[in-house]
Amino acid sequence: MKVEESMIEGRNAVLEAFRAGRPMDKLYILDGCRDGPIQSIAREARKQSTLIQYVPRERLDQLSPSGKHQGVIAYAAAYAYAEVEDMLHAAEEKNEPPFLILLDGIEDPHNLGAIIRTANLAGAHGVIIPKRRAVGLTAVVAKVSAGALNYTPVAKVTNLSATMEELKKQGLWFVCADMGGESMYKLNLRGPIGLVIGNEGEGVGSRVKETCDMVASIPMKGQIDSLNASVAAGVLAYEIVRQRLLPS
Amino acid sequence: MKVEESMIEGRNAVLEAFRAGRPMDKLYILDGCRDGPIQSIAREARKQSTLIQYVPRERLDQLSPSGKHQGVIAYAAAYAYAEVEDMLHAAEEKNEPPFLILLDGIEDPHNLGAIIRTANLAGAHGVIIPKRRAVGLTAVVAKVSAGALNYTPVAKVTNLSATMEELKKQGLWFVCADMGGESMYKLNLRGPIGLVIGNEGEGVGSRVKETCDMVASIPMKGQIDSLNASVAAGVLAYEIVRQRLLPS
Repeated sequence: MKVEESMIEGRNAVLEAFRAGRPMDKLYILDGCRDGPIQSIAREARKQSTLIQYVPRERLDQLSPSGKHQGVIAYAAAYAYAEVEDMLHAAEEKNEPPFLILLDGIEDPHNLGAIIRTANLAGAHGVIIPKRRAVGLTAVVAKVSAGALNYTPVAKVTNLSATMEELKKQGLWFVCADMGGESMYKLNLRGPIGLVIGNEGEGVGSRVKETCDMVASIPMKGQIDSLNASVAAGVLAYEIVRQRLLPS
Repeated sequence: MKVEESMIEGRNAVLEAFRAGRPMDKLYILDGCRDGPIQSIAREARKQSTLIQYVPRERLDQLSPSGKHQGVIAYAAAYAYAEVEDMLHAAEEKNEPPFLILLDGIEDPHNLGAIIRTANLAGAHGVIIPKRRAVGLTAVVAKVSAGALNYTPVAKVTNLSATMEELKKQGLWFVCADMGGESMYKLNLRGPIGLVIGNEGEGVGSRVKETCDMVASIPMKGQIDSLNASVAAGVLAYEIVRQRLLPS
């Protein structure tokens, strides 16, 4: 499943990479550039639902070590993304209720890597991240995951709350971590579940929070606001593990 | 409690800093340098039990932006260290059984910062770190702790297992996280407790492990070896929180 992470620049190279089906994290196009070759690249990117950003020339020059970007730079993912369906199949094969971890905009690659590591050890069937405003499967994430990316699938979706609505139809319940929720020890987290962890600074977005069935809070005794996002994910994931280990 | 983290160089400046009682993390002295002023500085450092390292001239030149180190460079801590006794007093004042977190050689400042943050929120009365082979209270640690360093005391000790022996006389039990232990859910973690977390790569050292009363394991379902150190600390600290919240 591993593929090399890399920056690809120049029109031919970028177009070839898309046509070869390499998973791409991001595409930067020079602002205002709309000629034929650029249109073809943008079309391929849209097919793969790669995030496209139009940026000024200075930004491209800054990203390109050679300066030969010809108005286009793409970033290939370090690892291939999986599909959400595959995660549900994996759970079914193991005869386990699905357990997914959804990240609503984690930006720090160390947090994403640590959470994928936790997902693997807690027995989650996969991790779902959004396309926008979130870190993807970069080389740093792969390294921090300590090998977990080889085993735990990660899917990238356009709209997290739409994906949640789809999964609800398949029987999943969603719990997010936020202040003012019910103590996690009092909630029933034993069935098919999606655990939602919010952005480092802003927490869970309002749309996603509304889509959740339960809001869990981690008991807090101290003076500060919140745990580190990957620690919070670990604490909640292991509360799910603990409840699943209880005799039914 | 906050003090500026900084590098101090030159004989007078370093001697003054020690005499002013500033908490110092490390003292670098030029290898083979044993004259009077240097001896005075080393004596002050020993009084404070600051770690002294004798290094070649190239290392000092590298550390010093001005090159005016005169054979001596010291690093002041970003925050003042506390005493272990103060933590026990804090527990007593709150009428709670002591709950300490001991770190056996955490090297990554992000992990240390995240663990201090967790300690604050889980209601631990303090964090104990060793002087050698471990990161101290640097500016990065302070930042990652998200303010927790202003509330949660951190003590630095010369010998972790000796400190544990002392604390045992005061009624504490020690549990470390390691593979092959009893599942954390089956251990009684409700009394006065010290939770020991090992180094990122090597885990808990053998002396420290022998000094522990219990070895706890976090149930692991996946293919990889271990959780990130700060996540493991969070999961175990919250198992202690959970057990303490149970009706007695």
